[in-house]
Amino acid sequence: MLRSFIEVKPESHFPIQNLPYGVFRPKWGGDPRIGVAIGDYVLDLSVLDDAGFFQGTAAAGKGVFRQRSLNAFMALGKQAWREVRSVIQRLLREDEPALQSNEALRAKALIPQSEITLLLPAEIGDYTDFYASKHHAANVGTMFRGKDNALMPNWTHLPVGYHGRASSIVLSGTAIRRPLGQMRPAGMEKPVFGPCQQLDYELEIGWFIGQGNMLGEPIPIDEAEDHIFGLVLVNDWSARDIQAWEYQPLGPFLAKNFATSISPWVVPLEALEPFRTAGPKQDPEPLPYLRAKRPGAFDIQLETYLKTDRMALPERISSVNFSTMYWSMAQQIAHHTIGGCNLRTGDLLASGTISGPEKHQRGCLLELTWRGSEPLQLASGEQRVWLEDGDELIITGWCQGDGYRIGFGEVRGRILPAIKHG
Amino acid sequence: MLRSFIEVKPESHFPIQNLPYGVFRPKWGGDPRIGVAIGDYVLDLSVLDDAGFFQGTAAAGKGVFRQRSLNAFMALGKQAWREVRSVIQRLLREDEPALQSNEALRAKALIPQSEITLLLPAEIGDYTDFYASKHHAANVGTMFRGKDNALMPNWTHLPVGYHGRASSIVLSGTAIRRPLGQMRPAGMEKPVFGPCQQLDYELEIGWFIGQGNMLGEPIPIDEAEDHIFGLVLVNDWSARDIQAWEYQPLGPFLAKNFATSISPWVVPLEALEPFRTAGPKQDPEPLPYLRAKRPGAFDIQLETYLKTDRMALPERISSVNFSTMYWSMAQQIAHHTIGGCNLRTGDLLASGTISGPEKHQRGCLLELTWRGSEPLQLASGEQRVWLEDGDELIITGWCQGDGYRIGFGEVRGRILPAIKHG
Repeated sequence: MLRSFIEVKPESHFPIQNLPYGVFRPKWGGDPRIGVAIGDYVLDLSVLDDAGFFQGTAAAGKGVFRQRSLNAFMALGKQAWREVRSVIQRLLREDEPALQSNEALRAKALIPQSEITLLLPAEIGDYTDFYASKHHAANVGTMFRGKDNALMPNWTHLPVGYHGRASSIVLSGTAIRRPLGQMRPAGMEKPVFGPCQQLDYELEIGWFIGQGNMLGEPIPIDEAEDHIFGLVLVNDWSARDIQAWEYQPLGPFLAKNFATSISPWVVPLEALEPFRTAGPKQDPEPLPYLRAKRPGAFDIQLETYLKTDRMALPERISSVNFSTMYWSMAQQIAHHTIGGCNLRTGDLLASGTISGPEKHQRGCLLELTWRGSEPLQLASGEQRVWLEDGDELIITGWCQGDGYRIGFGEVRGRILPAIKHG
Repeated sequence: MLRSFIEVKPESHFPIQNLPYGVFRPKWGGDPRIGVAIGDYVLDLSVLDDAGFFQGTAAAGKGVFRQRSLNAFMALGKQAWREVRSVIQRLLREDEPALQSNEALRAKALIPQSEITLLLPAEIGDYTDFYASKHHAANVGTMFRGKDNALMPNWTHLPVGYHGRASSIVLSGTAIRRPLGQMRPAGMEKPVFGPCQQLDYELEIGWFIGQGNMLGEPIPIDEAEDHIFGLVLVNDWSARDIQAWEYQPLGPFLAKNFATSISPWVVPLEALEPFRTAGPKQDPEPLPYLRAKRPGAFDIQLETYLKTDRMALPERISSVNFSTMYWSMAQQIAHHTIGGCNLRTGDLLASGTISGPEKHQRGCLLELTWRGSEPLQLASGEQRVWLEDGDELIITGWCQGDGYRIGFGEVRGRILPAIKHG
């Protein structure tokens, strides 16, 4: 097995097989720059670039690692990402002396993660959220329209998606303010105004677009993955009572746009290759522009934890695998662009809530509590139907290899009370 | 009446009372810069800034006019916009010699509009499209759900809106490629794939956000207009057959994101002040966060023209006034931010299709032809239900003053055939 000279515990998310990219600033000061996570350290790529280690790659000397976002590096394209990753992986190997034996360089380039502040990894132009889990769509549809009309007729023919809000995408750790808004309580004719009473999370995976496409030029499905730079965890916070009142006929708006949280480390698609697998069988067979030559699902284990004010430690409330998703990332990209819509470097696409067939595999409180009718019983003796002020929600995920984990770190956020208004 | 030393015909869109901002590049070369339209000329603000004319304003010497977008200038805020506009208006007056009598400066600063290329005026972070015309919402609702359920219960309580696609916003004049996609023809069980057969336009007005708000901090309605830098014409191209099949339950996606066209000149809100008027009476009275102290509608006359390949000149197909809109721009901003969503400099908000009560006042073909049942009879002898390849659609608009017009110029686009696929 490939090993680094840096100690990495088997349960660490960041072995030499992973090498996710992030944007950080040392706590002692300095400009933002790009690094990769390795064990408990971050490797500062701007230092490696200055020292000439990327000579011969398409990234050399372009300053792409001395940036406040990954966009410049992402825009270089797949071949450049592969070359850079190959250099980094070689430098970190246990049998490679270039970095290991250069103490001055190591001191400059390897920084403990406890001594950095992570920043939002990309400048996100547009954010698109899909609805690609059949179990999620069927659960929500059953609750709102009954079992016989759970899935809309279009659902098995195309990956349903909508445009989300890019401005309110925040980094893991950012506190989430409970939104104010209009909602219409059951049985009332007129709406009321106030703090959201049905605050929810949504467990999702997102991916950043590396190179985009020109307006009017669809991305063929078998080239779609070439446009994926890497993946992050996403929590698409949702205000269910605001959503129920506002969403007809144009879709969710204020119910979603108050905040979306993402994890800071972007896991390269290349690192996930050993975990590629087949997704669920698609029936009916999709139209030709959605038929891919190779399997497009990935075996990523995902877990959600809740920590209330009374708990010492977070409690796991659900776990599910990303490979249960009906529509693949490649299908979502091919569909997104089939009408000519242009994707740009830094755009974020996300899967929609990831739910499996079992109750403990549901990816949001709406499903876990079946719209409030089955409250969560917590080990602390508390119950939860929706998120309460002070609650912290943590999502984590990883691919389990033989003796190592390709981890995503985590995305977390704690609920603040609504502001006083009026 | 205020007059410029530059000749401006009464029917010109660009008198000294208007002074809309645009981003342009001289056809003979050079970097993009900011100008204002005056008669048939553009006044190059980067030249005025270099010559020190903005001394004493908040914009002086910051390089905000030597930019490829208006964002840097817009970010300075309302007081700066007012100061700059005041300087420009003074310099252009017939009784002011500073520019008029300085031949060298005039030669440098005043460029015929025929000698420039206009560019997209802003870097647009997020684009939000509303649905604020009651006549439009009622017409569409009647067609799709019958007269008794035309308006959803939420419609009179909040300005319904959704997130659009920022990447595919293009400048007037850009050719529009007919999108490919899935649609389900009437009576069929399964969808088919191919070029959109029901291509439509939507007449809208959009406005750019100057200064934004912090995440979590709503904009109070009586401050909402302070965040509006200026207005443009918008054509929100729509693929009705793709829309009908895809939009449930998350709203329009590919039906809209293949292109949205905007006019190049951004009319300052200040120029529209004499045309402020009351909008329709709102019943029921909106919730307090949507109640404004002063009227928020504007008297802007809008016209739509169609030019088919067989026509020598475009034919007017509808005309309507912006003041018929039920929800005001201020209400849309207050609603957009009430849950904490942050607007940023350069964000574009648009009204949704503008339709009046009369048939000739409808703002899209879906309404004008009542979903195809009443084809448009054109003077050329042709009929139209939807847009055909080669058709050009032109929207124009202005406020009629006493002897002058505050004009918006135009937004136009011609339909190209779909690409071959597969």
